Formats: sequence, structure tokens, C-alpha cells
Amino acid sequence: MIRFGVIGSSFISQKFIETAHSTQKFQLSAVFSRQLERAQEFAAPFQSAQAFADWQEFLAQDLDAIYIASPNALHYEQAKAVLLAGKHAIVEKPMVCHPDQLAELLRIAKENKVFLLEAARNTYEAAFESIGSFLRNHTILGAQFSYAKYSSKMPELLAGTKPNIFSEKMAGGALMDLGVYALYASVTLFGPAQKVAYQAQQLPNTVDLNGFGYLDYGHFQVGIFAGKNLTSTLANEIYTDKGTLVLDSCQHIQKATFYYHDGSHIDLDIQAPSNNMLEECLSFIHIIENGDQALADSLTQRAEAVHQALYDMRQVAGIHFSSDPI
Amino acid sequence: MIRFGVIGSSFISQKFIETAHSTQKFQLSAVFSRQLERAQEFAAPFQSAQAFADWQEFLAQDLDAIYIASPNALHYEQAKAVLLAGKHAIVEKPMVCHPDQLAELLRIAKENKVFLLEAARNTYEAAFESIGSFLRNHTILGAQFSYAKYSSKMPELLAGTKPNIFSEKMAGGALMDLGVYALYASVTLFGPAQKVAYQAQQLPNTVDLNGFGYLDYGHFQVGIFAGKNLTSTLANEIYTDKGTLVLDSCQHIQKATFYYHDGSHIDLDIQAPSNNMLEECLSFIHIIENGDQALADSLTQRAEAVHQALYDMRQVAGIHFSSDPI
Repeated sequence: MIRFGVIGSSFISQKFIETAHSTQKFQLSAVFSRQLERAQEFAAPFQSAQAFADWQEFLAQDLDAIYIASPNALHYEQAKAVLLAGKHAIVEKPMVCHPDQLAELLRIAKENKVFLLEAARNTYEAAFESIGSFLRNHTILGAQFSYAKYSSKMPELLAGTKPNIFSEKMAGGALMDLGVYALYASVTLFGPAQKVAYQAQQLPNTVDLNGFGYLDYGHFQVGIFAGKNLTSTLANEIYTDKGTLVLDSCQHIQKATFYYHDGSHIDLDIQAPSNNMLEECLSFIHIIENGDQALADSLTQRAEAVHQALYDMRQVAGIHFSSDPI
Repeated sequence: MIRFGVIGSSFISQKFIETAHSTQKFQLSAVFSRQLERAQEFAAPFQSAQAFADWQEFLAQDLDAIYIASPNALHYEQAKAVLLAGKHAIVEKPMVCHPDQLAELLRIAKENKVFLLEAARNTYEAAFESIGSFLRNHTILGAQFSYAKYSSKMPELLAGTKPNIFSEKMAGGALMDLGVYALYASVTLFGPAQKVAYQAQQLPNTVDLNGFGYLDYGHFQVGIFAGKNLTSTLANEIYTDKGTLVLDSCQHIQKATFYYHDGSHIDLDIQAPSNNMLEECLSFIHIIENGDQALADSLTQRAEAVHQALYDMRQVAGIHFSSDPI
């Protein structure tokens, strides 16, 4: 049983706990919030869980892992403290705001013999393995990955407040929140790109509402689209010398159909669990229980490529966060 | 009856003649080809048509208009001669390779009191009027227009020959051949952009096989995708403050459905003729028969915006044609 703590009391934490408990390998033991009442309220349904508002007390608990789902800009400092306390850190995407932060966290994780894992759920999907093996005897000619969904926080933004998800202080925006899935799809399938760029529709604080980008792989290029002020219904596509693989999405992929140039098509065998957080949860369990360093290293390489791309795209687009190095 | 001549004996000329004749307002009178035999063969099915291999003789015929469907790089010189001969020029898209060529052709057309018309068929579609009036009380937040189709000439290209459509001498490539439709969709609906860019997968001769681009309108941006070495099945989308308008295509639009944020949707009334060249043909007839200068001027403005965008995109991507000014 993995005894775990949770930082952040939003919907996503709730869903992670439910998913973790459904595996019967995770047990929620501690909940942290700056407001004790909020932590208590959040912990209440779970017999095993204690509530904390004292950060040091929370970190001193007998926990194997801590799941961090606070606003983006807080991930780095919290993950650092968690790793230094000798606990595995499972950090919601985007894990950091800058590649240097990732490098430092990885160094600290290594020194403390714990894992740093990013809850970027799509990279854990078995669908990418099916797609990858299907594509093995194809020449890749390009791809388009997108994730754009009208945010539930848009009314607040339009009313003049600045929700965390659109805040430069909290490292918000479409690229960080949803574009990261498109980048993970690309990096999971094709590895790191040679060059990236991003063109964003921006708020006065430079945070992006939506944007178009590309990853240049030399012999092919991948287009991405991310949006939080609009919804796209478009599918995702991977182009090869033999035809086009159409995916229903770049995250929680449930359908993949290959259309040959002659018009014929075949469906790939994709078996996705209905809970889109289950596969990442099972991977975290596997890595922690088995100490699977090889898998962790492979995930780390993807994270490094994704966070470098996120940062480079932000630089091209001129998206600046309060936490950015001057 | 509009007596017209044709330059170019490809499939597209054949289809234009059939469409023109179906209106009973056009009569094919002359066919030009550098090889007389080819012109004769092409003209044979049409009682009214004479074949020419002598350029001056062809231009001296009693013709109202000449339809030019030669390789892209030849359009400009041929259109110039046609206009100087006092005939309306209907030029296949892309009409020119450079905005300066367009400016000169427009000046010559004006001096000779004839029309210069681009056969960019989607800008003549009534669908855009329906879409435009539907969008009138919406705030535009962005759009995606794409046209990517595996070319019938790809096997030749892969076999080592260089078909015109991939030749820098003939001003070929995905952007010029298919991207032009995406640009026309954007310009027809939203006018000229403030800034454009394009990122291309290129042949050694710099001609693009596919590419991602954007048009920046200040308050929103439009992404485009064009491809000739791959096929995209994706729909096209226009994003507004109220939801997303999904189009089955950006050319020969047959279906347009608006999805509101609440999940409800409505179909726009789109009545497209099955022949995708009919609407442009009817517009050419209207302009020529009625001397509709206002409509011609409005089309000219679109053409200027599209050709400026095509050229600017080529400069960003580094796509160079033999005809480019040094």
C-alpha cells in the first residue's frame, strides 16, 4: 500500500484520490491546505486521512508519496520540499514553469532516492504503444495534435477577475494547461523536436488564450493547437507515406483509424479505460512498488523534452510568467 | 454569349469548359497549346472551337475572354498578353507568383477596360455569404482552415522526376496549390491579415510539400494547413464568443454546423451546387455581362490580400521560385 498525501483541494485532486483508491494500492493519509478548515473538509470522507495546514508537519508525516495539484506556479517549490523530505513527488502537469526547475528537481530526487513523476496522463496511455507499433513500418510525414476547450473560468475572466488559470503569477494559459497534452503526444511518439515555435492570442498579461505552434523534427513537422477561450471539435492526425492515422484526441484516445491512400481503412485496437487517470495511476504504482528506474528515466526524458518545448514556445510567443528568470 | 478561349489542356481546363457550357452563356471558340496537335485534340469535341499553336494568331481571334490554366509560373505573362489584347482574363489560382505582378496586371486591365478575374473558386461560393451573415452578431475568436490532399503526382516525385506542381520553375507547392484556398477562406470572411507566417516541409528546391501557417488579425488568429504529400480528413472551424462553427471544408462547403457552448447546435442553410466550379462561372458571367466593376473591385481586394499573404508566407518559410525578383 502506498501511503500518500495530497496538496491542493480542487476537482482534479478529488478525482486523483478516487482513481488511486480504486486501484487498492494507494491510501490517502494526509491532506494539506493553507486553510485548515478546507483541508479538514477535503479529508473528511476518508477515514485514513488527516488534515494539515502546517507545511512542515504535513511533510513530516509517514508518507510514501505526495500528489501535488496546486496552481502551476507553486509546483516547483512544493515538489522540491517533498523530494527533500524523502517522498516521491507526483506533480500535476505542467510539473514546472522552466526547464532549469526540472533539472534541479531531478537532481534532488536522485540525491534523495525518490521518484519525481509528472501526472501528464496521456503519456501513460497504452494507446500510444499501439499507435507506435502500428507506425513502426511507416515513414512519418507529419501530425496535428490539438486540445482546445472553452474554460469554465471564461465567464470569470470576461467579468474582469483573473482566475489562476489565466494568471501570469500562476503560470496559466492554454499552452501550459492544454497544449502540454499535444506536446506530450508528439514527444511520446516522436521524441524531442529540433525546433519549436508558438503564435498566441494573448491577454494583456501575456498569458495565452489560444495558440498555434509547431514542432520541427527535420524530416517532418507537427502542428499543435491549444485553446481555453474556444472549443475545437477537430480530430488529431498522424500522416505517413501510406496514409493518415486519425485519432479522436491526443489524450484519452479511444479511437484510432488508419486511412490508406486507396481509401480503405482499418481500426487500431485501442482499449482505453473509461477513467482517464487510471493508466497514470497504475504506472505510478508500478514505478514506486518496483523501483522501475528505467521506466522513470524514460518518462524523465519525455518530461525534459516537453518542458524545453513549452519554455521555447513561450519565448517565441512572448508569454512571460512572474517566476521566469530575469 | 461570351466567346472564350482556353490556354492549357489539362483536366481543369476540361472541367471549366464543361461548366462554362452548362451555363449556356459561354462558348468555347479557341484553344491554345504550344503543340498544335494537342490543341486540335483538345478542341475536337467542340464544334465552335478552333485550335492554335501560334500565340499571336490565338490572341488576335475575336474572343471576349480567355481562361488561363497553364502551370502557375506562366500565368502572369500570358494574362498580360491577354489583357493587352483587350480580352478579359480568367486566370486559374494562383493568378500570379508575386504581388507586384498582380499590381501590374490590374493596371493593364484598367487601361484596356477589361476584367482580370482569378478562378479561385471558393471565394465565389454563396456559402461564405451565409456564414458571414450568421457570424455578424458574433465576436470572432479564431479559425482553422486547411486543405491537404495526397497528390496524384506524388509517385512521379518519389520516382525522382519533378512534376510542375513541385517545381520551383513553375511556382508549385502545397501553399500555392491548396493553401491558397485556406487563404481565400480567411480573406473572404475576415479581410486582409495584419501579419502572416508559414512553416514548411520543403523539397531541396525549397518548394513545400506541406506546411502550417497563421494569419494574425490582431484580435484573433487563423491557422492554416496545406499539404500535397499527405491527406487530411479534418474539418475546418471558426471560433466565436458563442461557440464553434464547424465547416466540412474551406472550399466547396456543403455543411456548416454551429455548436453553442451549452452543447446545442444548429445547421446553417448551405445550398452548394454539386459542380464546384459553377458558382465562379456564374460570377464571371455576371461581371462580364453587366460590367459589374464594384464586384470586380471587391474581388480584386481579396486577391491582393491573398497574394500578399502567399508571398509573405513564402518569404518566412524560405520558399523561392525562379521567377522571384532578386
